[in-house]
Amino acid sequence: MKTLNVIKIGGNVIDDESQLNDFIKSLAVLNEPFILVHGGGKLATDLATRLNIPQQLIEGRRVTDAETLKIATMVYAGYINKNIVAKLQKHTLNSIGLSGADGNLITATKRIDEKIDYGFVGDLSIENVNSNFLKLLLENGLTPVICAITHDNQGQLLNTNADTIASVLGSALATTFQVKLTYCFEKKGVLFNPEDNNSVIKNLNLETFQKLKEEGIINKGMVPKIKNAFDALANGVEDVGITSAENFTNFIKNKTYEGTRITSSF
Amino acid sequence: MKTLNVIKIGGNVIDDESQLNDFIKSLAVLNEPFILVHGGGKLATDLATRLNIPQQLIEGRRVTDAETLKIATMVYAGYINKNIVAKLQKHTLNSIGLSGADGNLITATKRIDEKIDYGFVGDLSIENVNSNFLKLLLENGLTPVICAITHDNQGQLLNTNADTIASVLGSALATTFQVKLTYCFEKKGVLFNPEDNNSVIKNLNLETFQKLKEEGIINKGMVPKIKNAFDALANGVEDVGITSAENFTNFIKNKTYEGTRITSSF
Repeated sequence: MKTLNVIKIGGNVIDDESQLNDFIKSLAVLNEPFILVHGGGKLATDLATRLNIPQQLIEGRRVTDAETLKIATMVYAGYINKNIVAKLQKHTLNSIGLSGADGNLITATKRIDEKIDYGFVGDLSIENVNSNFLKLLLENGLTPVICAITHDNQGQLLNTNADTIASVLGSALATTFQVKLTYCFEKKGVLFNPEDNNSVIKNLNLETFQKLKEEGIINKGMVPKIKNAFDALANGVEDVGITSAENFTNFIKNKTYEGTRITSSF
Repeated sequence: MKTLNVIKIGGNVIDDESQLNDFIKSLAVLNEPFILVHGGGKLATDLATRLNIPQQLIEGRRVTDAETLKIATMVYAGYINKNIVAKLQKHTLNSIGLSGADGNLITATKRIDEKIDYGFVGDLSIENVNSNFLKLLLENGLTPVICAITHDNQGQLLNTNADTIASVLGSALATTFQVKLTYCFEKKGVLFNPEDNNSVIKNLNLETFQKLKEEGIINKGMVPKIKNAFDALANGVEDVGITSAENFTNFIKNKTYEGTRITSSF
């Protein structure tokens, strides 16, 4: 099977023009096929603030009312997605920006929660991915750049977690490709001490993860991110890792390079 | 040659959810292949107002500074484009939203004007269209939905006139398809009297256009729109017309139905 990288780039790197440019340059010379999934960064929150649209967070998750969905669609599918695509084109890497609605790429189901109304938030699983469409694009030399907006096939767009999209896409493609899934963000990997960027956990298995989670060493947003990583591994993704955008190329090309590698739970 | 419709939908229809839904329903049952090009409507201006970003218009054309380009990209490529795609998907019409950067679909050149700095505005000609990419999508049953944002291949997005994009796309595809180009907006066609929606000019040739323009009967935004229409005709587009979004299907299926048909200048 051919290798395919599924790369998730996190918000903080997107917020920093210089970091983003460096990351895109590294992708342009990667010389391996890839799909890029991007988050949103602070831009959506900033825009909501400027427009006086109050943002509600419940347990770290944004509640997506109609106005917030509009902002997310504008910022993720519009501004960020098209700028990343234009930057990749500059480096002669022929990319195509997509939401889940485009080419019916990713459908999702509006989250139903008995206690909390998350609004226009989508949940998804492997069956929701249109793998044939992705294969068509890849076979024709196009690099998909995917934002975290999906649709329900009933005309409704849905805000969806970008880490989950990357995990589910990787899983859906694992039967066709040897998938390497890498979460890139501003830190060097999962850290023992969030304040110390050199305290990288090199290898993380499910047992260690549970233990570190119970001890509170792994917490907040890292927990769902790592859960997504383990899900992908369980679904047949070959390599799953978490590293910095800066170290990305070294991380995937050199198996001993620093960063966190998610390993089998056994 | 196979028939291909290039359909431009104007701003006022996009601003009205009910009109837009009706138009999209009519596209979903058109049963002919098409490419949809959409404008932006008042949403971009409204957002600029809410964000206190002053908008400068010179001779009816928006000056696109960096902040205005950001808004245009968010509104056109994000909000409007993805909502149209999601609505088409609802009607099981598999569409794909694109800017000019996606798949390197349309490059443009930043406008250089000795007198006026239009900012990040792009001009384009037939050679700027990646027809092969459009053919690939159409052959695979995908309907392109194209917004008026292009790129310069150097990483810069550019705001571009949607009427011109429709004309140039139609022209570029005229060697491969029997192209029917239709400009749809809120009025029934080009009017003798802008106040009277029943004063439609049924057939418009270049000579009549020049005469009506000189008399001031055709003026303002209609002039560049009609110029784009004549350009397409000169470039080999088979049928060019201007009609209402409401009458669109009748207009293209029945050659005597009301609306303006652009005819050869001879």
